Amino acid sequence: MEKTKVAVGIDVGGTNTVFGFVSEAGKIIFESSISTRAEQKADQLFERLFKEINSSFKRFEKKYELVGIGIGAPNANYYKGTVDSPPNLNWGSVNVLKIIKKYSPLPAAITNDANAAAIGEMIFGAAKGMKDFIVITLGTGLGSGIVVNGQLVYGADGFAGEIGHTVLDPNGRECGCGRKGCLEAYASATGIRRTVFELIGTTNTPSALRDKNFTKLTAKEIADAAKRGDKLALAAFDYTAKILGLKMADSVAHLSPKAIILFGGLALAGDLIIAPTKRYMEEYMLNIFKNKVKVIPSALPGAGAAVLGSSALIWNELKKI
Amino acid sequence: MEKTKVAVGIDVGGTNTVFGFVSEAGKIIFESSISTRAEQKADQLFERLFKEINSSFKRFEKKYELVGIGIGAPNANYYKGTVDSPPNLNWGSVNVLKIIKKYSPLPAAITNDANAAAIGEMIFGAAKGMKDFIVITLGTGLGSGIVVNGQLVYGADGFAGEIGHTVLDPNGRECGCGRKGCLEAYASATGIRRTVFELIGTTNTPSALRDKNFTKLTAKEIADAAKRGDKLALAAFDYTAKILGLKMADSVAHLSPKAIILFGGLALAGDLIIAPTKRYMEEYMLNIFKNKVKVIPSALPGAGAAVLGSSALIWNELKKI
Repeated sequence: MEKTKVAVGIDVGGTNTVFGFVSEAGKIIFESSISTRAEQKADQLFERLFKEINSSFKRFEKKYELVGIGIGAPNANYYKGTVDSPPNLNWGSVNVLKIIKKYSPLPAAITNDANAAAIGEMIFGAAKGMKDFIVITLGTGLGSGIVVNGQLVYGADGFAGEIGHTVLDPNGRECGCGRKGCLEAYASATGIRRTVFELIGTTNTPSALRDKNFTKLTAKEIADAAKRGDKLALAAFDYTAKILGLKMADSVAHLSPKAIILFGGLALAGDLIIAPTKRYMEEYMLNIFKNKVKVIPSALPGAGAAVLGSSALIWNELKKI
Repeated sequence: MEKTKVAVGIDVGGTNTVFGFVSEAGKIIFESSISTRAEQKADQLFERLFKEINSSFKRFEKKYELVGIGIGAPNANYYKGTVDSPPNLNWGSVNVLKIIKKYSPLPAAITNDANAAAIGEMIFGAAKGMKDFIVITLGTGLGSGIVVNGQLVYGADGFAGEIGHTVLDPNGRECGCGRKGCLEAYASATGIRRTVFELIGTTNTPSALRDKNFTKLTAKEIADAAKRGDKLALAAFDYTAKILGLKMADSVAHLSPKAIILFGGLALAGDLIIAPTKRYMEEYMLNIFKNKVKVIPSALPGAGAAVLGSSALIWNELKKI
C-alpha cells in the first residue's frame, strides 16, 4: 500500500513551538508542542524539536511518509531562509534552513507567521480558489500576508506585507518599532487595550473597564464587556474598526483584492469587529472598489491554524517543482 | 530579408491621441498624433486613428511588420478590454478591444496610462531587470502602476494601483473622486498648486506667486520660482515631498519594492521633488526597509514615453505566448 504523504508544519512562538503532520488535503494527523525556551539559541531549539518530531512520527511511519518541512517564525525571510533578531527570542540573526539541514534532509521553507497564515488560507482556508487577497492577523501586533496573482508577495527583500506598520498619523501613538502612529498601535489586541485606556482618560463614559488595570486587561475581556453592552468597550471596538477600515481602504487602493481575511485573537470578536470594519472600509473606499471586496473571518480552525499555515507553505513549494 | 517587427503604441489623452511604431528593442521608428475630439464616441476616434495608422505605415511596410497593438487610456480595464466612463471623454462605458477588432486583426491589449508607464519602465526604462517596483505618475492627478514578481498587479477586478486615492487625512482636501484627503489632492501638479495657495493663505512668506491666479498657475512656474529661491515655492515642494514620502513609506510596507520610479510633469522638477521625497520616505519608513528602496526618475524619454509604455504592454503580452 502506498503511504500517504504528510508535511511537517512548525510554528515558532515566544513561549511554545507547535508542530504537526498535515496531509495535502489539510488533515492534521498529529499535533504537539514543546517549550521554545526563548533564552536558548535556535540550534538548541531545533535539536530538541527534531528529536520530538522523529519520535512522534515513529507511530505513523507505516502509513505515512514525510515529504517536507514548513516553518512559521517571527522575522523570518523566505528568500534567505533566515530569522533576523526576533524581538522575543535570544536568536540574533540565524539561518534556520541551514540548521534544519543538520537534522533533516527534507525540503524546507520558512516565512513569518502572517505569510504562513495567508498561504494556509489559500491552500486550506477562506481563500481557496482566490488569486488576490490579503490576510490580516490581529494578535499582539498586526501582521499581514498579501497574495497577488496566486503568489505570496515577498517583495525585493523578502519582507513585504508589513501593513501593521503603515502610518495612520506620524504624530500618533508610540509604536514598538520606534516610530509613531503605526496601524498596529491602534488595530490589534494591544491597540484596542490602548484605545480603552485613552477613552477612560478622554471621556466620562461609564464602564466596568474603569476597574481594570492596563497590564492585565485582555482583548477578550473588552469583547466580553462590549457583548454585555458596555458603552466604552463598544466605543473602543468602533474606533478600532474605523481605523482598520480606513487603512484597509488604502490596501484595497494598492491591490484590489477579492477579499481581506481577518485572523487571530481580536478577529475572534466576530461581528464586534468584522462588520464595522467592513462598513468603515466601504465608507472610506474609492468608488470603483465599493461592494467588491469581502471582509471575512479566517476559515482555519483556531487550534490548528498555525500548523496548517506553515505546512501549507511547504505544500505550496512542492507544487512548484 | 526578414522584416523587423514593430508594435503600435497608442496613448489616448483628453486632447490628443498619440501613436507610434516601436521595435522590440524600444526604438520608435515613427510617431504622430491626431486630435482626440473628446465629444466624439470611441468608435469614431478609432476609425480615424486606424486610417492614420494604416496610411502612416505604408512607407514602412517594406522593412517592417506590425505584430500587435498596445493602448493606454484613462479608466481602462486590462481584463475586460473596456474603458469605463473616462472623466474627460464622451465615451461612456465601451469595449475598446472589440472596436479595435473592426479595424485590425492584430493582437491588442489595453490598460491605463500609469500601468502602461510601469510596463514601459520594465521593458525599456528605469526598471529593466527589476521584478518588484512601483511607478508613480505625477501629472494632473497621481497615477500608479505596481509590479510584483515581474507581473503588473491588476488585482481581482483589473483596477489595482490607485495609490493616488489612498487617504492621507479623511478630513483633508476635497478630491475629484468625491472623497476627502486623497494623496493626489496633495502630491500632483494640481496638488502642489493647491499647496501654494494654501500657503499664501496661511503664511506671510513673501513670494512672487502671490501675483498669480490659481487657474493659470502651472507646476512648472512653481518649480521655476523654487529654483530662483522663492521661499513659498520651496515650502510647497517640501510639503509635497513630505506627504508623498509618508505615503510612499506605506506602499513600501505593503510591497517592499526595489525602486519607486517617479514619472510625469511634476517629476521633471528633478531634485526639487525627488531628493526630498526620498529623504522623507526614509524618515517615515519602518527600520527593516531603510536604505533599500531607490527613488529614481523615469528613464523613458519625455516625448515618446506614452507610446513606449503602451507598445511595451503588447510586447510584454506577446512574450507570454
